[in-house]
Amino acid sequence: MPAITGKEYIERIDTMKTEIWYKGEKITGKISEHPVYQGTIQSQSALYDMQLQPSTMEFMTYPSPKTGDRVGRSYQKPTTKTDLHHRSEMMKEWAKSSHGMLGRSPDYMNTVLMALAASASLLEGEENCFPKHLVQFYEQAQEQDLSFTHTFINPQVNRSPFYLEDSNEPIAARIIEETMEGIVIKGARLLATQGGMTDEILVLSPGGINDPSHAFAFSIPSDTKGLRFICRESFTFGSNSYNHPLSSRFEEMDTIVVFDNVTVPWERVFFYNNIQITNRFLRESAFRPFALHQVLNRQIVKLEFVAGVAEGIVQTIDIGGYAHVQEKMAEIIIALETLKSLLIKAETNAKIDKFGLMSPELAPLQVASSTFPKVYPKLIEIVQLLGASGMVTIPTEEDFSSEIRTDLDQYLQSAKHNAKDRIKLFRLAWDLTMSPFATRQTQYERYFFGNPSTIASDLYQNYKIKPTK
Amino acid sequence: MPAITGKEYIERIDTMKTEIWYKGEKITGKISEHPVYQGTIQSQSALYDMQLQPSTMEFMTYPSPKTGDRVGRSYQKPTTKTDLHHRSEMMKEWAKSSHGMLGRSPDYMNTVLMALAASASLLEGEENCFPKHLVQFYEQAQEQDLSFTHTFINPQVNRSPFYLEDSNEPIAARIIEETMEGIVIKGARLLATQGGMTDEILVLSPGGINDPSHAFAFSIPSDTKGLRFICRESFTFGSNSYNHPLSSRFEEMDTIVVFDNVTVPWERVFFYNNIQITNRFLRESAFRPFALHQVLNRQIVKLEFVAGVAEGIVQTIDIGGYAHVQEKMAEIIIALETLKSLLIKAETNAKIDKFGLMSPELAPLQVASSTFPKVYPKLIEIVQLLGASGMVTIPTEEDFSSEIRTDLDQYLQSAKHNAKDRIKLFRLAWDLTMSPFATRQTQYERYFFGNPSTIASDLYQNYKIKPTK
Amino acid sequence: MPAITGKEYIERIDTMKTEIWYKGEKITGKISEHPVYQGTIQSQSALYDMQLQPSTMEFMTYPSPKTGDRVGRSYQKPTTKTDLHHRSEMMKEWAKSSHGMLGRSPDYMNTVLMALAASASLLEGEENCFPKHLVQFYEQAQEQDLSFTHTFINPQVNRSPFYLEDSNEPIAARIIEETMEGIVIKGARLLATQGGMTDEILVLSPGGINDPSHAFAFSIPSDTKGLRFICRESFTFGSNSYNHPLSSRFEEMDTIVVFDNVTVPWERVFFYNNIQITNRFLRESAFRPFALHQVLNRQIVKLEFVAGVAEGIVQTIDIGGYAHVQEKMAEIIIALETLKSLLIKAETNAKIDKFGLMSPELAPLQVASSTFPKVYPKLIEIVQLLGASGMVTIPTEEDFSSEIRTDLDQYLQSAKHNAKDRIKLFRLAWDLTMSPFATRQTQYERYFFGNPSTIASDLYQNYKIKPTK
Amino acid sequence: MPAITGKEYIERIDTMKTEIWYKGEKITGKISEHPVYQGTIQSQSALYDMQLQPSTMEFMTYPSPKTGDRVGRSYQKPTTKTDLHHRSEMMKEWAKSSHGMLGRSPDYMNTVLMALAASASLLEGEENCFPKHLVQFYEQAQEQDLSFTHTFINPQVNRSPFYLEDSNEPIAARIIEETMEGIVIKGARLLATQGGMTDEILVLSPGGINDPSHAFAFSIPSDTKGLRFICRESFTFGSNSYNHPLSSRFEEMDTIVVFDNVTVPWERVFFYNNIQITNRFLRESAFRPFALHQVLNRQIVKLEFVAGVAEGIVQTIDIGGYAHVQEKMAEIIIALETLKSLLIKAETNAKIDKFGLMSPELAPLQVASSTFPKVYPKLIEIVQLLGASGMVTIPTEEDFSSEIRTDLDQYLQSAKHNAKDRIKLFRLAWDLTMSPFATRQTQYERYFFGNPSTIASDLYQNYKIKPTK
Repeated sequence: MPAITGKEYIERIDTMKTEIWYKGEKITGKISEHPVYQGTIQSQSALYDMQLQPSTMEFMTYPSPKTGDRVGRSYQKPTTKTDLHHRSEMMKEWAKSSHGMLGRSPDYMNTVLMALAASASLLEGEENCFPKHLVQFYEQAQEQDLSFTHTFINPQVNRSPFYLEDSNEPIAARIIEETMEGIVIKGARLLATQGGMTDEILVLSPGGINDPSHAFAFSIPSDTKGLRFICRESFTFGSNSYNHPLSSRFEEMDTIVVFDNVTVPWERVFFYNNIQITNRFLRESAFRPFALHQVLNRQIVKLEFVAGVAEGIVQTIDIGGYAHVQEKMAEIIIALETLKSLLIKAETNAKIDKFGLMSPELAPLQVASSTFPKVYPKLIEIVQLLGASGMVTIPTEEDFSSEIRTDLDQYLQSAKHNAKDRIKLFRLAWDLTMSPFATRQTQYERYFFGNPSTIASDLYQNYKIKPTK
Repeated sequence: MPAITGKEYIERIDTMKTEIWYKGEKITGKISEHPVYQGTIQSQSALYDMQLQPSTMEFMTYPSPKTGDRVGRSYQKPTTKTDLHHRSEMMKEWAKSSHGMLGRSPDYMNTVLMALAASASLLEGEENCFPKHLVQFYEQAQEQDLSFTHTFINPQVNRSPFYLEDSNEPIAARIIEETMEGIVIKGARLLATQGGMTDEILVLSPGGINDPSHAFAFSIPSDTKGLRFICRESFTFGSNSYNHPLSSRFEEMDTIVVFDNVTVPWERVFFYNNIQITNRFLRESAFRPFALHQVLNRQIVKLEFVAGVAEGIVQTIDIGGYAHVQEKMAEIIIALETLKSLLIKAETNAKIDKFGLMSPELAPLQVASSTFPKVYPKLIEIVQLLGASGMVTIPTEEDFSSEIRTDLDQYLQSAKHNAKDRIKLFRLAWDLTMSPFATRQTQYERYFFGNPSTIASDLYQNYKIKPTK
Repeated sequence: MPAITGKEYIERIDTMKTEIWYKGEKITGKISEHPVYQGTIQSQSALYDMQLQPSTMEFMTYPSPKTGDRVGRSYQKPTTKTDLHHRSEMMKEWAKSSHGMLGRSPDYMNTVLMALAASASLLEGEENCFPKHLVQFYEQAQEQDLSFTHTFINPQVNRSPFYLEDSNEPIAARIIEETMEGIVIKGARLLATQGGMTDEILVLSPGGINDPSHAFAFSIPSDTKGLRFICRESFTFGSNSYNHPLSSRFEEMDTIVVFDNVTVPWERVFFYNNIQITNRFLRESAFRPFALHQVLNRQIVKLEFVAGVAEGIVQTIDIGGYAHVQEKMAEIIIALETLKSLLIKAETNAKIDKFGLMSPELAPLQVASSTFPKVYPKLIEIVQLLGASGMVTIPTEEDFSSEIRTDLDQYLQSAKHNAKDRIKLFRLAWDLTMSPFATRQTQYERYFFGNPSTIASDLYQNYKIKPTK
Repeated sequence: MPAITGKEYIERIDTMKTEIWYKGEKITGKISEHPVYQGTIQSQSALYDMQLQPSTMEFMTYPSPKTGDRVGRSYQKPTTKTDLHHRSEMMKEWAKSSHGMLGRSPDYMNTVLMALAASASLLEGEENCFPKHLVQFYEQAQEQDLSFTHTFINPQVNRSPFYLEDSNEPIAARIIEETMEGIVIKGARLLATQGGMTDEILVLSPGGINDPSHAFAFSIPSDTKGLRFICRESFTFGSNSYNHPLSSRFEEMDTIVVFDNVTVPWERVFFYNNIQITNRFLRESAFRPFALHQVLNRQIVKLEFVAGVAEGIVQTIDIGGYAHVQEKMAEIIIALETLKSLLIKAETNAKIDKFGLMSPELAPLQVASSTFPKVYPKLIEIVQLLGASGMVTIPTEEDFSSEIRTDLDQYLQSAKHNAKDRIKLFRLAWDLTMSPFATRQTQYERYFFGNPSTIASDLYQNYKIKPTK
């Protein structure tokens, strides 16, 4: 059956010989058993299992238009509002499984690939463009339930507005040669989240380029020769889920991707050496509305989780009667209701686009993508403020298994909870807001769709206000 | 025909002998011709005229369930989502006519009265309650298209949390006697907006009381004996609509209402001398969702107007290319899309309530009522910041009619406008953001539904978040 | 005696034949009696009188280094910390007289002229520069106690970053000719505050220019031939100081200044036609520290006034026990203490500069000039929030003189005040925060030293932080 | 020599048999060698060494009034402005050594003890008060250079405003018996920072109590029988100072302190069983101005460090030309200059208090203590925003020692730095803003002097604003 199980996902990843470096050492053995990847691969595998559970299979998958087999719903090209609704339901269901913490759960890249493939007509008849490669690869990915990492970001020697790379050796990944087999890439890309734990890596130029050697779009297997993933330090402390309930399970690694003379075979090249297309494709394709739609669904689930943790603290230490607490909780509710409303507007006003997709309205999704990066850090701060000094008084499960448990039971009990449950909740709140996992989540959400100024500019330019005269 | 025209409205107001004081003088002669009321009465009259224009009559009115005559749509008890939609359409249409500046356009009080009458069953069988009076009066108001002012706010010698009035003479209006004719009221109420320019005044206790003499709800004609309206200083500068385009047309007066031994006839008493009902009625009735729904429709129209003025400035002085300008415009768009989305959610999730009304969802409306008071002052500030020093360089129409026009034409021209049109726009922006009319609008929107802390508390307490454990 | 009295000031202004236009009419008769100028000229005249009162003369004036006569202290070149301290004392004393509302009280321009003249050495030996004219004119101004308006701002057809004026006819004032008598100026300048009610107008190019015809600095009498002042609409409502206690007394007019072929005599030209000097002079001169020092002294007095009004409201309606009120009052105190501390640091760290002046430290003054524009609008808002609905319930003195006074006395009394005193305080608060006078004050303070982004950039570039490596 | 060296400090700590629990295990062996304490004890030891370095001894110590021996400057009772200045210098010097990260460097508690002892006259003649014990103990501490932890915070079953502990067994530490030897304490206290690594623990009731068994003040050695310290999880990742430059050196542990029937000998009891004194002593003593003065000195050093890291990032990736970067840097400068100015004001206006101490002015110190908790989290966020995605791309020193160093050198180089130095700076920035050490620092600074609402209330109530009438 094409939609895979968790076990199939893990076996496929473990079988590949992907080159991954962690703290100066090349990872050998099964990736799924390496401490740095183990917890998150388990969590991802649980997502795949949900596809085939009888109770959820109906909306987690759909019959492949090609084979009739059940394939992942996030690969579907929606053409009706019902399709769009199923898509939302499916994505929310996956997001709930990680409380929205997996920013790169497979539905994100599946959606991206679907949207790009649906927009292949933009490449039709353009120089150095291979729309058929894109469409065929999308179909293959769908039938085999491939998983992806990707990366948009170039390393930069500086970020000055006037910077042009002038190194002889490539720094940002670029085409250094064309051969019979394909194009050859040398250089690096940054911040491939889940790098090393996916079947494939999809590489796209983000637009705004002026050097044809930076113009390309392709996908290759993670274990392609010359491809190398370098991990940052892991933000997993350990595998104890009482002590670190989130970071032990949802720490998506971020990697630097090195292309050491990597050959991309022609059938995997979607376009190359065409500056114009590179600069237009993402913006004109169905990418934006569908990617933003996936993200908003996930972020709503995440905020619901934050709200639940906040309310948990409020009830545990019985502070719901204070005006300042009510104001903080109201702020969370306002954020949540606002995002939900924006999603409803986007879906209510969805329309068939030029590619035949039932496309959600862009403006409310852009507003959400402008709002969330501001609101998320504030809500995280609210949880810290509600927890106050309790966020620091956090012994571990080991303490509760020792002879000082009697002390803890007496001195850390709460009105509603015994000490161990109370500390469990506060450890969760800490892992959500104050751990390195937490601060990386905040940083990640802040920049998900680029810097705030660009998002604001896009929003303003797309939204036509009629001026008063 | 029951739904009245502007002319009928004006004639009715002018015929009444309402006692109104302005700057130490009792107003004599026709109210509609007094400089303080004249512009706003004209604007209100234009609203009534819209009811009977063939092109809009269909949704501005509906057939009275009692008589079949066309009566005002805002009096309708909606029982379907279509009804709710018509209601929104009608209210937006009226709001557009004043750019949302008339906070007390008749649909507000019509809606309130409809919601209260629909909730009359709450009064059934309760002591000193007359649900029939309420229902009958609602029907009368609908058939005669009565207009209303109202007031919730008591004067207070202080606002300390521990304050109890202990004056021998009433300060806050209260019942001092019951007679054969009705109840007798003495004391004052504050902030009756449009006081003096409506047929009736509806008086309700806001709840939270503990003295039965403060417990009542009734409506009486504005010219009832002993009733007196005292105006604040007018914020209209004059009638020149080039110089003061908004304040010359939409300055709703606020009045102190003095009850000098006013007898309210029994048939106009809805309840009295029942603390429990007084403290429960508003909260349990259909008041909140429907009042908030009216307000949100108006506020959306108002923000659209603010957005248009902002964009007008941006285009006129050609500043749309600056990052900080784009960010400010994006902030306006975000506010606008957010409010629109909240309205869509409230209507999408509308349900039949216990009174048989198709009631919009409360939570998104509460969120809107919490958001708008914060966002409106910020958007007003944005317009000031966009206009910058241009907000101060504002000569008058008289200058353009004098020999210095040549100077103005040369020195105040803009890229897109001649000097006179440019100044017209900046004067509008000034009147919207910096005139006394403008600052009163801001203050008014800030407190429309009470202080922010109470709104936040209500929102939190109504919204059930499931706590994480 | 050189330091003049109020009477001398008024007589001098009234004697001049300055051309001023208000609402399409040329002002004839004595300026000091025109409703638009009358109140503010009285207030300014009171400042001059303070110079010669025996009790304050000692620090309000100092002996002229040239003549030994007592001349205004703000003209003094400070060379010791004691001088600097006297200067602060004198400026605070004047500021108190207008509660800091006169942004252009004479000490501001006196200080500017002193700082420019002290920096005349920068002009020494430079092309088209006349340092002696500047020094002589400073001495003349000091001995005659001249008063000034000035203007930095050019009219702009647009404010686009790419704008270059290409009109054939000048828009921004520029040199169109050099003659035997002097340079001839044509075009306009904006926002000359107090325009028309001063002896002189000082005109300086603000820097950042690239056209030599825009490069100049000079001063001429207000009634110079061809010079014309065009008023904006006045923000004075009337002369009743109960109803409008601030705007009736401190409404400084802003004017457009038209140069209709105005000849500036050579002895009044400080420099011209020298782009380099124009772009360097202000920045390298003693202008910044001394102008910022004057402004900060005034702004501290203004905040003290705002604090007093806020505390007045708090006590009158007895709300000091609420946590949110305490937080608002604390915000005011924080602003006030912060500004006072910045002033102390600037004076404590004052040093002799390259011109021999005892110059206050620049950084804390820049910080103050960056802080005040943000904090002032917030404090104004706090006063509005403390006053709440009381800011709208504001009858007039006329009401208190009529038969409805009994109603007002009963219904508007407060815990600490009778009704008339309570309303007096709230009318003051309204005039400070919600009148057109108030909103213009806010706009004025926001832009006093340019836009926030430029101020931030200057601050950053002057302040050398040692980077961590 | 009384002022000790680092070696003496370590030996004393290691010799004690203090009972400390970490992750369910009792620490055995030398505390200074335990991974959880090792780095911070080294850093603290370096502080002591500075006391005796010839170059700094003069102001780091002063001659004991009793013995003439050099003792720590922070124990000195300042009676002149010069004393106060030396005190500031000394505290800044120590703070620089840890970049202000050691919130409980010994000068904090030394200062507290000095201030309390200086205020001993408040205890004179009061019931159950032993002012002599306090004075003698202060002298002993000074002569022996004792180090301290302390704790104000009670465990609470809940934080509801209406909570009263009703457990039979004590939860919050309280007196359960008086014996010949002293008072016997049972129960717990929270958040003793540096618990276990100091000679003594000082225990004070924070005031606001109403049960005499909670009324006490005393100091006992850390290894007193029945005293137990329970650590939270450590935020030190490891001892590599390239990878974790701050957390490996400045991680002050926070501990729960358990009093398991601890006898406090009478000579160490300062007062007990006197509610009135307990609720008045801290507030009326010299505690506030001197504690706030120490804290502000440290916080200024800390902000200087944050500023340096921010500027380091700006220069390394060459982003100083962007307007938004300049605004962010300006925000840092504003915070820094503001705090420095508040300190100058407090010292400039210092006065002899009722205890004969030269006491810094309270208001600006309170303003600082209200400002810092708001500003510090914002500056930390600014560093995160400046670093952007660079805050996540952080390989380790181990990577630079492996064969992939070539990749890193090429792809992570910056305009100004080689890859290893660049990553070193970004790792520092991460450790300062995103590590668990960093988030604990932020939480700690937020609550240093209690919750913001209480601080605001205190500030308002101490600061007398003259109301306008």
